[in-house]
Amino acid sequence: MVFSSALIENAVNEFAKLPGIGKKTALRLVLHLLKQEPGQVENFGEAITRMRKQIQFCKYCHNVSDEEVCSICKAPSRNNGIVCVVESIRDVMAIENTQQFNGKYHVLGGIISPIDGIGPDQLNIYSLVERVKADEIKEVIMAVSPTIEGDTTIYYISKKLKDYPVKVTTIARGIAFGGELEYADEMTLARSLTNRLPLENYLQQGK
Amino acid sequence: MVFSSALIENAVNEFAKLPGIGKKTALRLVLHLLKQEPGQVENFGEAITRMRKQIQFCKYCHNVSDEEVCSICKAPSRNNGIVCVVESIRDVMAIENTQQFNGKYHVLGGIISPIDGIGPDQLNIYSLVERVKADEIKEVIMAVSPTIEGDTTIYYISKKLKDYPVKVTTIARGIAFGGELEYADEMTLARSLTNRLPLENYLQQGK
Repeated sequence: MVFSSALIENAVNEFAKLPGIGKKTALRLVLHLLKQEPGQVENFGEAITRMRKQIQFCKYCHNVSDEEVCSICKAPSRNNGIVCVVESIRDVMAIENTQQFNGKYHVLGGIISPIDGIGPDQLNIYSLVERVKADEIKEVIMAVSPTIEGDTTIYYISKKLKDYPVKVTTIARGIAFGGELEYADEMTLARSLTNRLPLENYLQQGK
Repeated sequence: MVFSSALIENAVNEFAKLPGIGKKTALRLVLHLLKQEPGQVENFGEAITRMRKQIQFCKYCHNVSDEEVCSICKAPSRNNGIVCVVESIRDVMAIENTQQFNGKYHVLGGIISPIDGIGPDQLNIYSLVERVKADEIKEVIMAVSPTIEGDTTIYYISKKLKDYPVKVTTIARGIAFGGELEYADEMTLARSLTNRLPLENYLQQGK
């Protein structure tokens, strides 16, 4: 691509570094910004720079945070006795969006995956065990992806926690809402049969 | 979407203002930036802010420029006698990418479109006539999109230029009707420049 302006070329190249954004899309975004007020574009640039510079990771749950302790860990209304273990901060957001969980979180920062060279030591597992030791945690919900790596991680953590008086649970595996039974994989279908629920429970949940 | 960090929420909202970027994509981009070095992210933010603050429009051709006169208008190797009239700076880039044109440009900043309330006075037509009057321009190539609005613009400009000793041509219709100039492939665009026609031929073909 030929640019007659180094300023534009530079901005396009920076946008094109983002995942899923090619040169043409980057140019479209830059030309869009060119039509905006300079103040607005400055807000955009500053929001990004500030975000990266000032962001912290909560010292308890490792979630992203504006302060040393995140807003979820600080909230007095939330249940200290139940901790939901997730792979990433995206999973925290996904669960928060459901508005169905009122406990705390623990972000592992990944999942045990020998192929990718990720072992337990690279994840925030030690700090989870320390929290269970120190706090009045009664239940740890393992909310990791239903993959072999996820199951390995669940198994590893459950072993680390077995000496403490804490209940370890996993989120239910089953057929997704709106999913077609015939297209479900065998593992999921088998698991959803094994973990079948009394109809009363199911109907109550629907309310 | 629920965020536990105002910094992240702010950055996501700014990204989501861009065209074609929704909240989910914005979040994906922000989480990508979160993994980069703070210095890199600062470069990104600054490139955008600086671009918008320092960009100028060339006083001759109205193309984007880092200085008062753009690099194309300043280039001594380029042919002063031939001016290519385009709607937007994206079209300048598209034509420059073909590497088939060695003249100068004139960016109209749009196209005559009564439906959108854009008349000749909102476009850089007066300054084009002034350039033709003052300079040694021998040929004006109309490289606007082949639409009704484009044809109207060609017709209007050709009338404004008819008293001057300048040849008005249009790019060849190698580009499909209804197609946008900037999405044309380079071969087609290059061919359409090489096979440009005198305006009389073009108007006859339309009948």
